[in-house]
Amino acid sequence: MDADDRVARWEDRSEGPLFIASLLFLAAYAAHVLDPGAPDWVHAILLSVIALTWAGFLVDYLVRLRLSGRRFGPAYVRDNFVDTVATILPLLRPLRVVRIYEVVQRRREQPRLSLYGRVIAYGSLTSLLLGFAGALAVYQQERYAPHATIRTFGDSVWWVAETLTTVGYGDVTPVTVGGRTIATFLMVLGLALLGAVTGSFSSWLIQSFARDDEK
Amino acid sequence: MDADDRVARWEDRSEGPLFIASLLFLAAYAAHVLDPGAPDWVHAILLSVIALTWAGFLVDYLVRLRLSGRRFGPAYVRDNFVDTVATILPLLRPLRVVRIYEVVQRRREQPRLSLYGRVIAYGSLTSLLLGFAGALAVYQQERYAPHATIRTFGDSVWWVAETLTTVGYGDVTPVTVGGRTIATFLMVLGLALLGAVTGSFSSWLIQSFARDDEK
Amino acid sequence: MDADDRVARWEDRSEGPLFIASLLFLAAYAAHVLDPGAPDWVHAILLSVIALTWAGFLVDYLVRLRLSGRRFGPAYVRDNFVDTVATILPLLRPLRVVRIYEVVQRRREQPRLSLYGRVIAYGSLTSLLLGFAGALAVYQQERYAPHATIRTFGDSVWWVAETLTTVGYGDVTPVTVGGRTIATFLMVLGLALLGAVTGSFSSWLIQSFARDDEK
Amino acid sequence: MDADDRVARWEDRSEGPLFIASLLFLAAYAAHVLDPGAPDWVHAILLSVIALTWAGFLVDYLVRLRLSGRRFGPAYVRDNFVDTVATILPLLRPLRVVRIYEVVQRRREQPRLSLYGRVIAYGSLTSLLLGFAGALAVYQQERYAPHATIRTFGDSVWWVAETLTTVGYGDVTPVTVGGRTIATFLMVLGLALLGAVTGSFSSWLIQSFARDDEK
Repeated sequence: MDADDRVARWEDRSEGPLFIASLLFLAAYAAHVLDPGAPDWVHAILLSVIALTWAGFLVDYLVRLRLSGRRFGPAYVRDNFVDTVATILPLLRPLRVVRIYEVVQRRREQPRLSLYGRVIAYGSLTSLLLGFAGALAVYQQERYAPHATIRTFGDSVWWVAETLTTVGYGDVTPVTVGGRTIATFLMVLGLALLGAVTGSFSSWLIQSFARDDEK
Repeated sequence: MDADDRVARWEDRSEGPLFIASLLFLAAYAAHVLDPGAPDWVHAILLSVIALTWAGFLVDYLVRLRLSGRRFGPAYVRDNFVDTVATILPLLRPLRVVRIYEVVQRRREQPRLSLYGRVIAYGSLTSLLLGFAGALAVYQQERYAPHATIRTFGDSVWWVAETLTTVGYGDVTPVTVGGRTIATFLMVLGLALLGAVTGSFSSWLIQSFARDDEK
Repeated sequence: MDADDRVARWEDRSEGPLFIASLLFLAAYAAHVLDPGAPDWVHAILLSVIALTWAGFLVDYLVRLRLSGRRFGPAYVRDNFVDTVATILPLLRPLRVVRIYEVVQRRREQPRLSLYGRVIAYGSLTSLLLGFAGALAVYQQERYAPHATIRTFGDSVWWVAETLTTVGYGDVTPVTVGGRTIATFLMVLGLALLGAVTGSFSSWLIQSFARDDEK
Repeated sequence: MDADDRVARWEDRSEGPLFIASLLFLAAYAAHVLDPGAPDWVHAILLSVIALTWAGFLVDYLVRLRLSGRRFGPAYVRDNFVDTVATILPLLRPLRVVRIYEVVQRRREQPRLSLYGRVIAYGSLTSLLLGFAGALAVYQQERYAPHATIRTFGDSVWWVAETLTTVGYGDVTPVTVGGRTIATFLMVLGLALLGAVTGSFSSWLIQSFARDDEK
C-alpha cells in the first residue's frame, strides 16, 4: 500500500469525526462570545472544547503529513493549501459539507453539481462562515470599547452584511485596532469571494440564456 | 395529448390574467403602504386584493404541478425554479413582460432581443421591481421607528438607489431588525443582478467594438 | 448620390463646427453655474450660447434624418442610438475626440488604438465628462438648499469621485430631490461605464501577461 | 554590440543598486512623515536620501534613453511605460521583486508563477505599496487640518483599507484639497488594480474547478 492510499484511507475514516469537531468548534466559540454572563466553569468548558478540537485538527494535519512520507516545507504547504488553511482557520472546515454532498449524490447516482453550481456553493458557504465568524470576532473586540458603535451582536451581523457586499454605510464601524484589523481581512477576503460568486452567477446566467437561444 | 402540451396550453390561457393580477398585486401593496391615512375599508380591500392575487398565483402553480403529472419535491422545484420563486415573490412576475415582448416581436417577424439585450432587460427590470418593492417594504418597517433616518418614501427610494449600486453613503440607513433583514437580502440579490447587468454590458461593449474593428 | 453618401458628406462638413459648439456648450454651462455673481447680461449671453448650441445640435440631427430619407421612429432611434443620446445630452459630444484622434492616426499611417485601448479611452472620457457635468448639475441643485453638505464646487467634485468609484463615504451627499435624481442616474451610468473600463483593463492585463508568457 | 544589448547589460548591473535605492526611498519617506518630532538634522538627512534616490532613478532613466539611441518623445514613453511610471512614482519600484523572484525560480529550475499567479502577485503588491504610500501622503496632508477625522497614521491605514476595497464607511475621510486629490487617484488606481486581482482570482478559481472536473 503506497503513501497516497494510506492518506486516502485516513481521510475516509477521519472525515466524519472531523466534521463534527468543526461544528463543535464553531458552536463553542459562538457560545463563548455571545454569553459573557455565563458562570466561569461554563466558559472553562467552552474554551477547552475550542482548544481540544483545534488540537484535533492539528493532529489530523500531522498524521497526514506523516502518512504522505513527505517533509514539511513550502512545497508541502502549496500542495495542501486548503488543508493548511483549514487547520489554521478551523471555522472554514464546514466547507467540506459541499464535498460530502457530492459524495452522497454520486452514491445515489444523481448528477453532481455543475461547475458554476460548485463555485457558487463554496463561495456562498465560505461567505456565510467567514461572515459569522467575523461578526463574532469583531463583536468580541468592540463591545466594551469606548465610543463603540457596534454594541450588540445584531449590530455586528449588520456590519458584516454591509461590509461583505462593499455597501459600507458606516452607521456602525469598528473603532478598536483589533476590530479594524479583522475588518480589513474580512474586506479583502470578502471581495475576492463575492467576486468569484458574482462572476460565476453572471457566467451561468449568460450561458443558460445562450443555451435557451439554441433551442 | 401529453403532459407538456397540457402545461403549455394552460400557460397560453393563464398568461394574460396572471400578468394583470401581478400588476394588481403590486399596485395594491404600494397603495397599502403609501397611504396609511386611508379609511379602514380601503385597506381591507387592498389587503383582500393582495391575498386573492397571491392565492391565484398559488392555484396556478398547483394546476401546473398537477398537469405535469409529477410529484412535488426538490427535483420539481429545481426544474421550475423561476416559477417557484415567482409564486413566493409575486412582485417578480412582471418580469414576464420581457417574454411577452419577444412573442410580439416574433409575430411581427422582427428579430428578437440579442443575448446581452435579454440579460440587460431582465436584469434592469428585476432591479427596478426589487428596488421598488424593497423601498416599500423597508419604508413600512422604518417609518414609525424611533431614531429612524428613513422617514419618507422618497428617503426609502434614495436609500435603495445607493444600496443597489453599492455606493452606500449611509446618510439614510435602516435601524430596525426588520428593515435590516430586508436590506441584507436586497444587498445580496442586488449585487448578483447588477453584476450580471454590468458584466453583460461590458461584454456587449467589447463585442460591438470588436465587430467595428473587423469592418 | 445615395442617402448614405449624402449623410457622410454632411458629417464631414459638420464635424468641426459641431465639436467646437460642444466645447462652447460645456464652457457656457460651467461658467453659468460656477459664477452666480456675474452681472445679469453675462448670464443672458451664457444662456443664449447654451440655447443656440443646443439648437444647432438639434438642427444637425434633423438634417441627418432628412438626408437619410427615413422616417423618425423607434427603428431610426435604435440605428442612430449614440447620435440621439448626444443630441439630448450634448455634453457627451466631446466623445467624438476619440474618433477624430483615430482619423488623424490613420492619415499619419500610425496604428489605431487597440480594442481595449478604445474601450478604456471612451470609458474614461465619458466618466470624466459625465462626472464634470454631474458635479455642475448637483452643485446647482444643492448650493442654496438648507442642511446641504455640498456647499462648494470642490465638494461636488469630491462627491462625484466617491460616487463614480462606488466608494461612497457619505461625508457629503445630495439632500434635494433634484440632486438625488441626478445622483441616481450618475450612479447607474457610472457603474456601467466603470465596469466596462475595469473589465477592459483586466482583460488587457491578462492578455498582455499571456503574450509575455509565449516569449 | 547593438542598442538592445547595451540596455540589457545596463539593466543587469543596475538592478541590485536600484532595488536597494527604492527601499531606501520608501523608508526615508515613511520616517520623514511618521516622526515629525525628530531633530531637524534627521529630517535634513531623510529629505536628502529622498532627493538623492529620486535623482538616481532619473539618471538611470536618462542612461537607458541614451543607450537605446532613441529620441525622447511620446513613442519612447509608450514603449517604456512601466519604467516611466516607476521613475515618476519611485514607490512602485519594489514591484520588481516579482521579476527577481522569477529569475531566482528559473535558476533553481523551479516552475515560474502561473499567469494568474503573476497577475495576483503584481496586483496585490501594487495595492500594498500604493496603499502604504497613499496612507503616508494623506496622513501628511490631514494631520494638522482643522476638523480632520484622520488624526493618526492608524486612521490613515484604516481609511486606505476601506477605500481600496470600495467599502467606504466614511467614519474617517480626508477634508483637505490635497488629501482629497490623492484620495481620488487612489480610488481610481485601486479600483483598476483590485478589479484585475479579483478578476484573476475568479478566473483561476473557475479554471481550477474545471480541471478538477476533468479528473
